[in-house]
Amino acid sequence: MVDTRFYNKREYILFDEICTLLGVPLPDKCFSKREISGIARLDNATSADITFFHNAKYAAELSKTQAFACVVSKKNAHLVPEGTIPLIVPEPYLALAVLLKEFYSIKGKRGEAYLSPKANISKLAVVEDGCYISDYVTIADGVIVKKGTFIGANVTILDGVEIGENSHIEPNVTIGFAVIGKNAYIKTGARIGQQGFGFHIGKAGITDVLQVGKVIIGDDVQIGANCTIDRGSMGDTIIGSHSRIDNLVHVAHNVEIGDYCVIAAQTGIAGSTKIGNQCFLGGQVGIAGHLVIGDKVTIAAQSGAMRDIESGGKVAGSPAVNILNWHRQNVTLKKLIEHNNQTKMRGFFEKLKFIFKK
Amino acid sequence: MVDTRFYNKREYILFDEICTLLGVPLPDKCFSKREISGIARLDNATSADITFFHNAKYAAELSKTQAFACVVSKKNAHLVPEGTIPLIVPEPYLALAVLLKEFYSIKGKRGEAYLSPKANISKLAVVEDGCYISDYVTIADGVIVKKGTFIGANVTILDGVEIGENSHIEPNVTIGFAVIGKNAYIKTGARIGQQGFGFHIGKAGITDVLQVGKVIIGDDVQIGANCTIDRGSMGDTIIGSHSRIDNLVHVAHNVEIGDYCVIAAQTGIAGSTKIGNQCFLGGQVGIAGHLVIGDKVTIAAQSGAMRDIESGGKVAGSPAVNILNWHRQNVTLKKLIEHNNQTKMRGFFEKLKFIFKK
Amino acid sequence: MVDTRFYNKREYILFDEICTLLGVPLPDKCFSKREISGIARLDNATSADITFFHNAKYAAELSKTQAFACVVSKKNAHLVPEGTIPLIVPEPYLALAVLLKEFYSIKGKRGEAYLSPKANISKLAVVEDGCYISDYVTIADGVIVKKGTFIGANVTILDGVEIGENSHIEPNVTIGFAVIGKNAYIKTGARIGQQGFGFHIGKAGITDVLQVGKVIIGDDVQIGANCTIDRGSMGDTIIGSHSRIDNLVHVAHNVEIGDYCVIAAQTGIAGSTKIGNQCFLGGQVGIAGHLVIGDKVTIAAQSGAMRDIESGGKVAGSPAVNILNWHRQNVTLKKLIEHNNQTKMRGFFEKLKFIFKK
Repeated sequence: MVDTRFYNKREYILFDEICTLLGVPLPDKCFSKREISGIARLDNATSADITFFHNAKYAAELSKTQAFACVVSKKNAHLVPEGTIPLIVPEPYLALAVLLKEFYSIKGKRGEAYLSPKANISKLAVVEDGCYISDYVTIADGVIVKKGTFIGANVTILDGVEIGENSHIEPNVTIGFAVIGKNAYIKTGARIGQQGFGFHIGKAGITDVLQVGKVIIGDDVQIGANCTIDRGSMGDTIIGSHSRIDNLVHVAHNVEIGDYCVIAAQTGIAGSTKIGNQCFLGGQVGIAGHLVIGDKVTIAAQSGAMRDIESGGKVAGSPAVNILNWHRQNVTLKKLIEHNNQTKMRGFFEKLKFIFKK
Repeated sequence: MVDTRFYNKREYILFDEICTLLGVPLPDKCFSKREISGIARLDNATSADITFFHNAKYAAELSKTQAFACVVSKKNAHLVPEGTIPLIVPEPYLALAVLLKEFYSIKGKRGEAYLSPKANISKLAVVEDGCYISDYVTIADGVIVKKGTFIGANVTILDGVEIGENSHIEPNVTIGFAVIGKNAYIKTGARIGQQGFGFHIGKAGITDVLQVGKVIIGDDVQIGANCTIDRGSMGDTIIGSHSRIDNLVHVAHNVEIGDYCVIAAQTGIAGSTKIGNQCFLGGQVGIAGHLVIGDKVTIAAQSGAMRDIESGGKVAGSPAVNILNWHRQNVTLKKLIEHNNQTKMRGFFEKLKFIFKK
Repeated sequence: MVDTRFYNKREYILFDEICTLLGVPLPDKCFSKREISGIARLDNATSADITFFHNAKYAAELSKTQAFACVVSKKNAHLVPEGTIPLIVPEPYLALAVLLKEFYSIKGKRGEAYLSPKANISKLAVVEDGCYISDYVTIADGVIVKKGTFIGANVTILDGVEIGENSHIEPNVTIGFAVIGKNAYIKTGARIGQQGFGFHIGKAGITDVLQVGKVIIGDDVQIGANCTIDRGSMGDTIIGSHSRIDNLVHVAHNVEIGDYCVIAAQTGIAGSTKIGNQCFLGGQVGIAGHLVIGDKVTIAAQSGAMRDIESGGKVAGSPAVNILNWHRQNVTLKKLIEHNNQTKMRGFFEKLKFIFKK
């Protein structure tokens, strides 16, 4: 299944090793040395593959799977068909992550230590041991790249930037005015630290206000492809540890995002807004500036948050309202138009006028 | 009209050659050797220019045009003023495309064969004949670039990628984990094949799930500037032949888009959604994950599709509903507020409360 | 406060120099030679700092500030606490801009004259005096870069482009088919001049229409990170002087934007729409094609403008309506669902049906 032009693959893993990796007791000694050749989806797994089941929607596929074994939760184990061994784990999707990482790895020169002669690394920069610096990278004065970090081709790193250890900076990224933690994963085309949208509009026209802050990114953070994270004006733009940001997201100056937040693609957060920990933002969400969003807040896709949201809040719509009210709005609109065709609507409004005139 | 800093221009084309190009009978032998100097809009064409008419909105401009001849449909031929020769064709806009291509071409070194010494092409990559590889391009191991393809400056192509013949990859693009058909046109800053937004959220925090799929792009596909097309997790992200994607569009992992689809700017499609053939998506549309969108579906700009859509469906709104119902919703809202000012609204709701209490 | 890894800082500025810079009379001769060490926010300014007050929201912070002096408007001067000197100016935010620029400057090699040997500058291009051309830049034939302009690393400039004096082009930008005025500030990853979304859809499938226009950008314009500005098809895409465009904005072919417009992040403007002067567009706004938007128009965030808007208009919503009506719509929806829970709604619609049947 996996295309070996892009991935390296272990030829096989013995079944007992797989059980050990998953922390599952070996179901039957006879199978301990069975060679498992890969991970596959329910519908195309062979009798040499491991498959997995974690979405009830695919129960029909599970019933027909040819897989040798199936990673599954206790609750769903009874759905695994005869001839396939259930491997019961508390979190099947997590187990899948473990197995994929064991079986496959990405081709290319990651992980090696290398400084391309076609890169321009300032003598006033520090690149620690074990880094891979690709072609056409520029690393300016005062930059610190900590050990084991990969920098892809055509990346530009401006003066004074610090990037933590074991980070992965994909090609064509620009980073300036930023201090980035360890294990960062900055995807291709992301822009970090440029001057935000700060200016004075007055009698003399538009005057730029020099932005003198920076971007602080915690540990284990991912920033999606072609995102834009502006630096702070006075004070900093902050992205907390373990947060995940999808592609094409805009984070304006002085925004603060907590830890373990998940932000889907094309969302935009206006200046100085603070977002707590463990928040979920759907795609194409807009959040106005200077707001305070609590912890564990959920904002549905395409919503427009224009007010503070308390911890635990769930909102939807533009302007965003409590998600239950948003559903009610939609039902209301649906019913209004279902029960009243154009002609009847006219009658309805005339009736209303009549009522009000009384 | 056309700025010769950017375009090459044929000095003139004889009128009979133009008629031949358009498949139109020569209206009058006297004009056969007339030198036509260019294509111009209705309002600024001179008596040496060809103009065209394909939008009824511009009938006033047509009536006053000074053009020598006007490309026009049969239906509108009577609108062409005396002194201008109507050139009747079934599809005037298509005829325009033919003439523009004949008159003008883009300046720069496209079409030549050249491997820049300032590019880094792996010895384990294959670059076929007639390719133009610009400066600061990196082409990694196992890459295949088929004949006649242009790669712009600062492009990064990762291991194993295949790009079909006569493709055009603009500057500053990143491509990895992808198999791209012929005649592709990938615009500047597009990101193809990066790891999607895939992770497990559980008791131990957030764990990444290695994405082991790829991106498959058909023939004659265009991808807009700064788009992001993530690779599949298990299985592939697919974009069908002849589809056109505008700028800043996000296509998540495992999305499948059919043939001849047209997707306007800033639209986002969440993971695993399947879109049929010949669909039209307006700008800033959002489509939720795991949906099935049929063939010939139209989704109006800024809509948010949260459910499957059958073939031929036309939807609008967020959440998206049938487009007629969306118009009705808008009319309903409009009437509700037109007929009831703030004070009256208060009366209206009191009245409702009264009714419900009865 | 300011991180000296990224910024140069004057050690101090004498208080009388600050007063001169602000055009404010020196409050007390004793303080004239006081050394002011920096600019800080109300809440963390020390007795050696200047602070500023321009947002009533922060009155509590002002009352407790430890700053030596506070830049403030006449109207708010009485709020400045004892022990802090009020520096009364007509526009405090503008005064802040003046002081920031005086105290701080960005680290790095801007402002110097330098042509990197790792750049590829065509012999048929003109780079005037005082320009800084960074590594891995390509400048094609016929390009003119006027004096004092900075071009960041990995920028690609295609044939014939003209960039005005004292402009700043950040890294990883692509510019083609464009004439850009002086003092331009093009942020990292912006794409200017690529072919727009122009094609004919007919019996023979999709045919591209060669775009033969350009992009014209006035003086003192800012284009945000990862924006996409397509060139004109026939005729030009135009951005007027002094306009400010935030990140990830899409401007389609033949759009014309006036002077002093402010366009927030992730907004998209479809082809051939004309926008007047001094317009404000919020974030994530969508504007349909072929519209005429007057001067001084305000379009609220996330709105979808589908019709022309007269000068001075203020609209919101998708589809956009007069902003007052949009507020009324929201109130109406809110009241409808507040006063009627699900059960009552059912009663409401039955009642309506009953009324209509009468």
